[in-house]
Amino acid sequence: MTITELGKRAKAAARVLAHAGPRKQAALLRAGEALWARRQEILEANRLDLEAGRAAGMSQALLDRLALTEARVRAMAQAVEEVAKAPDPVGRVLSGETRPNGLRLEKITVPLGVIGLIYEARPNVTSDAASLCLQAGSAVILRGGKEAFRSNQAVTRILREALEEEGLPGDCVQLVEDTSRQSAQELMALTDYLDVLIPRGGAGLIRSVKENARVPVIETGVGNCHVYVDKDADLDMAAEIVYNGKTSRPSVCNAIETLLVHEAVAKEALPRIRARLEEKQVELRGCEKTRALLPGVVPATQEDWATEYLDYILAVKVVSSLEEALDHIARYSTGHSECIVTENYTAAQRFLEEVDAAAVYVNASTRFTDGGEFGLGAEIGISTQKLHARGPMGLEQLVSYKFLIRGNGQVR
Amino acid sequence: MTITELGKRAKAAARVLAHAGPRKQAALLRAGEALWARRQEILEANRLDLEAGRAAGMSQALLDRLALTEARVRAMAQAVEEVAKAPDPVGRVLSGETRPNGLRLEKITVPLGVIGLIYEARPNVTSDAASLCLQAGSAVILRGGKEAFRSNQAVTRILREALEEEGLPGDCVQLVEDTSRQSAQELMALTDYLDVLIPRGGAGLIRSVKENARVPVIETGVGNCHVYVDKDADLDMAAEIVYNGKTSRPSVCNAIETLLVHEAVAKEALPRIRARLEEKQVELRGCEKTRALLPGVVPATQEDWATEYLDYILAVKVVSSLEEALDHIARYSTGHSECIVTENYTAAQRFLEEVDAAAVYVNASTRFTDGGEFGLGAEIGISTQKLHARGPMGLEQLVSYKFLIRGNGQVR
Repeated sequence: MTITELGKRAKAAARVLAHAGPRKQAALLRAGEALWARRQEILEANRLDLEAGRAAGMSQALLDRLALTEARVRAMAQAVEEVAKAPDPVGRVLSGETRPNGLRLEKITVPLGVIGLIYEARPNVTSDAASLCLQAGSAVILRGGKEAFRSNQAVTRILREALEEEGLPGDCVQLVEDTSRQSAQELMALTDYLDVLIPRGGAGLIRSVKENARVPVIETGVGNCHVYVDKDADLDMAAEIVYNGKTSRPSVCNAIETLLVHEAVAKEALPRIRARLEEKQVELRGCEKTRALLPGVVPATQEDWATEYLDYILAVKVVSSLEEALDHIARYSTGHSECIVTENYTAAQRFLEEVDAAAVYVNASTRFTDGGEFGLGAEIGISTQKLHARGPMGLEQLVSYKFLIRGNGQVR
Repeated sequence: MTITELGKRAKAAARVLAHAGPRKQAALLRAGEALWARRQEILEANRLDLEAGRAAGMSQALLDRLALTEARVRAMAQAVEEVAKAPDPVGRVLSGETRPNGLRLEKITVPLGVIGLIYEARPNVTSDAASLCLQAGSAVILRGGKEAFRSNQAVTRILREALEEEGLPGDCVQLVEDTSRQSAQELMALTDYLDVLIPRGGAGLIRSVKENARVPVIETGVGNCHVYVDKDADLDMAAEIVYNGKTSRPSVCNAIETLLVHEAVAKEALPRIRARLEEKQVELRGCEKTRALLPGVVPATQEDWATEYLDYILAVKVVSSLEEALDHIARYSTGHSECIVTENYTAAQRFLEEVDAAAVYVNASTRFTDGGEFGLGAEIGISTQKLHARGPMGLEQLVSYKFLIRGNGQVR
């Protein structure tokens, strides 16, 4: 099927889904049950994907991301059921008033319409993202990576059947069968049918979508995150926050990539932080001042300040003031999550106010930037742009609104 | 100056403006006063624009839009002062809670950053849009039409001086000096510096921006608006709403372009509506059934249903049911404003729920879709997209938000 045809079907399905009310939830509960009941079908498809991946020489890290187990399928099914039980984000009245001319004005939430999702190798994204879109009343066109195609196909089939069993169009969830670069390009240009395109994946994918998309896009998940250890920091707390930010899960977007340390405490703080990071063999790349204090650290280049390593590597810079830290962050931050460790009230307030990022922390790990941790429920991604939604995007961020105006003959 | 250089300066200025607090308002009040005090300077620049326009053979309609008078300059100055007196949309706490792990989470409004605006011949847009952006804490890059260049330059100079007199960077407001197509293209690609681009103008401009922009865009102001006269309509009310929607100001986006009439009342309604519209010599273009009832009406083509005339022309179609009206609107609406005239409760509810547009009306003119009429204050445009903002966009829609997280050493 062509991408345009998928778009047409999605748009028609979205019109039905927008007014499906509780049948959405019923279909999702059914889908959650079916994912678990039909786990053999999913695992068998996944086995074929893994075989093809091994034959193609895929790295072990990628194979790990691709691999499903009974436990992972159970988690997928549970995630779908949890989304089904979340409050319906559609049809909520956001505000309302009676205007002086008697018009009754109401602003209510409505579905976005048709959401496109381009993502890479994790098959659980298929059920996670589709269930969020459906619960938010939107049809979704999924364009996953070719490595996970059979797994995605099995999951999509089960979701579609659950929708149809509830009398809803299966076309509310469609998987792009052509996993070539061409199909992604076509999706990015589907202005007549797509209300928004959400890329989930590495910096290369996000950049490509940003450069090429003609449909509205929500950029997600590129995190060049910093911790700044202020001159008034509690240095034990600083070491724990840096250790947690770098090593608890280095491959995710809310992990930290650069440490900034005020020169007044650098001599005491840096050896302590290094000792903690050595437990996980973290490689440090430092500025000149850092290297003077920590012998053996390799020099950091300009490129290091701009790199999201997603690995056990940390760039380190000694700064002479809070201002220098703020300037460095303003220059290199991707606007995801930034942290200051300090006991100084004014430094904390300035950092909170002046840093331009989705999540700005005082004395806590950047690893908390997450829909669940923020109490928003499951998330479809973490937006690093400022339009529409910023930071973790849950169900409430997956809707739009419209104005309803009830009159009795008013003209202007 | 290159567009990139403008972008760099805007970004630097935006960092200062974001934390300018009440100095923003003081600068705007000063700007409002100065626009009036220096009206001769503006009118003289405008005179040169008008002369050049006449020499270039500009149409009378365009010259009218371009022309400033003392009264128009006074209105511009007053509009700036009103924006200055509106509540500051930046720094408001939208929500907040303490998470179970003790993290204190707050969601607060922040400026968008740098806003680009591409617009056509009206010089008042320069002060209207710039003052909204400034009050919302964002720097603005203005790319007006070449016809109004000298007028825009005079207005911009006055705004910049007012900012500087309050100790704020003049670069918070910059006018693109190169009014070629090339400069618009470069602005659309300024991804490193522009947080959002708002085109204000005709369908051609909006389409060009949508096709070419690589920065986030908010589409505005294309309105192919419909009135549907239901079988249970009050036909006198219907005639007034159609008359007002078509003739009170045909050149604006919330004017109506197509009338749909239920066949059960067409025979009675159409002659009555025609009689009312003839007062303003409105040309009707009708479907076959319309032409059978109204002799002399020219036939409507497929293209008519999709056309925003912005003129004293109305397309007319007789439909056999509410469903047919809903289908027609779903196909041709630009998602701006749509109206049903009916006394039937269920028809009204279905129309409100099923029509996918920024503003959906029962028994009132679509001409009310406007920031002032909706109580949002001055508007920078009417969004016809679903991301970020929909319908009239005032100050509250010109901001983003961020999360502030205060901890005492939490790690994950």
